[in-house]
Amino acid sequence: MKRVYNFSAGPSMLPQSVLEKAAAEMLDYEGSGQSVMEMSHRSKIYGTIIEGAEALLREVMNIPDNYKVLFLQGGASTQFAAIPMNLGTGTGKADFVLTGQWATKAQKEAARYLKSANVVASSKDKTFSYIPKLDPSTFTKDADYFYICMNNTIYGTVFHELPETGDVPLVADISSCILSTPIDVSKFGILYAGAQKNMAPAGLTIVIVREDLIGHAMDICPTMLNFQTHADNGSMFNTPPCYTIYIAKLVLEWIKNEIGGLAKMQEINEKKAGILYSFLDSSSMFKGTVVPEDRSLMNVPFITGSDELDAKFVKEATENDFVNLKGHRSVGGMRASIYNAMPVEGVEKLVQFMKEFEARNS
Amino acid sequence: MKRVYNFSAGPSMLPQSVLEKAAAEMLDYEGSGQSVMEMSHRSKIYGTIIEGAEALLREVMNIPDNYKVLFLQGGASTQFAAIPMNLGTGTGKADFVLTGQWATKAQKEAARYLKSANVVASSKDKTFSYIPKLDPSTFTKDADYFYICMNNTIYGTVFHELPETGDVPLVADISSCILSTPIDVSKFGILYAGAQKNMAPAGLTIVIVREDLIGHAMDICPTMLNFQTHADNGSMFNTPPCYTIYIAKLVLEWIKNEIGGLAKMQEINEKKAGILYSFLDSSSMFKGTVVPEDRSLMNVPFITGSDELDAKFVKEATENDFVNLKGHRSVGGMRASIYNAMPVEGVEKLVQFMKEFEARNS
Repeated sequence: MKRVYNFSAGPSMLPQSVLEKAAAEMLDYEGSGQSVMEMSHRSKIYGTIIEGAEALLREVMNIPDNYKVLFLQGGASTQFAAIPMNLGTGTGKADFVLTGQWATKAQKEAARYLKSANVVASSKDKTFSYIPKLDPSTFTKDADYFYICMNNTIYGTVFHELPETGDVPLVADISSCILSTPIDVSKFGILYAGAQKNMAPAGLTIVIVREDLIGHAMDICPTMLNFQTHADNGSMFNTPPCYTIYIAKLVLEWIKNEIGGLAKMQEINEKKAGILYSFLDSSSMFKGTVVPEDRSLMNVPFITGSDELDAKFVKEATENDFVNLKGHRSVGGMRASIYNAMPVEGVEKLVQFMKEFEARNS
Repeated sequence: MKRVYNFSAGPSMLPQSVLEKAAAEMLDYEGSGQSVMEMSHRSKIYGTIIEGAEALLREVMNIPDNYKVLFLQGGASTQFAAIPMNLGTGTGKADFVLTGQWATKAQKEAARYLKSANVVASSKDKTFSYIPKLDPSTFTKDADYFYICMNNTIYGTVFHELPETGDVPLVADISSCILSTPIDVSKFGILYAGAQKNMAPAGLTIVIVREDLIGHAMDICPTMLNFQTHADNGSMFNTPPCYTIYIAKLVLEWIKNEIGGLAKMQEINEKKAGILYSFLDSSSMFKGTVVPEDRSLMNVPFITGSDELDAKFVKEATENDFVNLKGHRSVGGMRASIYNAMPVEGVEKLVQFMKEFEARNS
């Protein structure tokens, strides 16, 4: 059996022990004689899986009781419509910080449903290579919500400080940083994430929503996009993505039992990112593209300054089983996504390979 | 390893050879060093999987070139809104036949978006135990579409004849009969199905849509519910449910290579249903609940006439590894869902068990 170091931005690496358990249980989950793929979502045994996944997520993320956890489908892109349709019935105004392609898409879709989808700041002027400084006096005081994309997968930036939005609910897309560090859920109105980076295969969207924000959807909101539909039915209004939720549960067990929780996860992630950023800061060939103070722990974009050399590096890295290092098609260069499941030695070996590449090509 | 006969209405049994292949490939798909769960959806190797799945579906179902195949999320329940939002911009009228809970939900959701969601016929008067006779002279001549739920999972009925809708596009939910028999796709405007019965685990919705019906969505239609979004991007506008599509591909390979196509699949399904219906027609304890001419090949509801005896039967059946035979909570009694992956011997053994139960309790 071959295993590569997979630096994909998502879907991405899963812990090997999770994959091994999933394979071992594929035909017969805990003596049930069924694969989890085959289980009725209304069966008692499947109930233990989805309830167990929610309980673990609540424990690992320390989610307060006045928040609902929803297991949905359709990815962050579906939430780009669902969020304004659910929250935008007060004043119909919301504020957005544009820190990349995903925040921009979220703002554009929200503008179709809101009276005002106001851009309070943007870092587009420098290809989203930094997080804009925010001045709370410019925020819309009576906004229904304030929207950010916390970690920007394509550009490799992260909000280290949260905007001070007062009573306006803060809504954050945490698709590419969920479970990577502890996070104070109580500071947010909604946290949501596509699961395909740090949590599970593609096909599951986690929405963590404060209860008072549920139940105010627009009349035109499709039943399936209304948070109340799913909150009232324990994410079982219709058939949920059962198997993907099962893998998420295995990943949460890995974080809790094998890693030791999110504080420990953060330590490991800081160690991995530190190894890579230290090398980028010392290399005369490779350079990080993000201002140091806004660097992401999860996504590390870098360039050589030469398209030809970039292509050569990606090609040779792939041949050496460091895969999916090519940067996003909208920015070029390279990007190493080093999510939770990337082991420390994967980053160490990548840096070793980069050093050798630099020596060979200088 | 234990395996049971699983009569679940969905999610439901998958072919054992599919599960075995998925388990074997879990950590390293074809020497890539990655699980399919971990693959970037934009990678070349994943491209072969999603394109392979579409090509196989087109071949097995004989889908004409002027139809798009979309791999979506959100289940049939999301399509209940998407269909009126995509098709309802002509006259804003559509016709519905109410043959059960799912058709009723589809009509109710469509009524939120259409000028008229007209019920042309219903079998609610007899707990949906038959398919209403339809009189085309009562159909709305200028409707944007005509809607049916082809196979009714809860009640065990199926449309053996299609409504004659002329130029009005026929839209059918085929969630619980897709791939069970050949079907003439060219007679439909849209065929769609949640995959979790005959095709894959939950979390994938297949939409087969005639090209001329794409591109007319309502202004309020969320980008992710607009068929054009996905048709223009080969179902890759955002991250699709990659692993579920991979399992669908394995199931399609099983139908093509191990079964020999849909005509052969129909033969096997008719044999299985024949065994069970013959017994129900001869038993003095167990009775089918559907009029013989509208019986489904996939879902077979039956009763003893005594709630107590029903409960005893379900309990003893479960103890003997015939699981998920309890009827839907809205109708009670029993239901055996005998989808493609249920082997003939599963039905034979169930009937044998029913005979013994009847002898013991008469």
